[in-house]
Amino acid sequence: MISELARIEIDPQDATAFEAAVASAAPHFRAAPGCHSFRLDRSVDHPGHYLLVVGWESVEAHMVDFRASPEFQAWRALAGPFFKTPPQVDHVETAVEGF
Amino acid sequence: MISELARIEIDPQDATAFEAAVASAAPHFRAAPGCHSFRLDRSVDHPGHYLLVVGWESVEAHMVDFRASPEFQAWRALAGPFFKTPPQVDHVETAVEGF
Repeated sequence: MISELARIEIDPQDATAFEAAVASAAPHFRAAPGCHSFRLDRSVDHPGHYLLVVGWESVEAHMVDFRASPEFQAWRALAGPFFKTPPQVDHVETAVEGF
Repeated sequence: MISELARIEIDPQDATAFEAAVASAAPHFRAAPGCHSFRLDRSVDHPGHYLLVVGWESVEAHMVDFRASPEFQAWRALAGPFFKTPPQVDHVETAVEGF
């Protein structure tokens, strides 16, 4: 299990519409093979900055299978118009589970 | 409830020692008032890059109370020597709980 972390920046005045678009995209992630969870976090410190956190079975499930799927196209059609810059994507795994 | 996200970069050859230092710091977070959770995520894509994820009651519990406490000093004494650059800190709250 890994998590995709995508740092997204939008115009702060579009926040409500962007969050609604992301919520409406949830079924496309739920339908994606190897996708375990999906959440959008909003920065408290920097308006318009978000972190999309998606749990995947593997990096390949995200970068190969999902990216080549119609579900990815549907996600990008919903959320992409809000992106001010290309999202910064990283993949992480738990190193220390503190508590 | 908010989460502190601290992006940390270390020398990749120190990874094992750094992760052990972070694990040994868990009691200092557990003892901090308003601290609910503590986890270190390791980047799969970029060796030496980490994300510290700490759940706090509020931004103030982290930035005011914890930063002024001996627990913060203990944390920095353990982990700080590994930091290549000052950690990039942000605070987030959940905007969309997809699934």
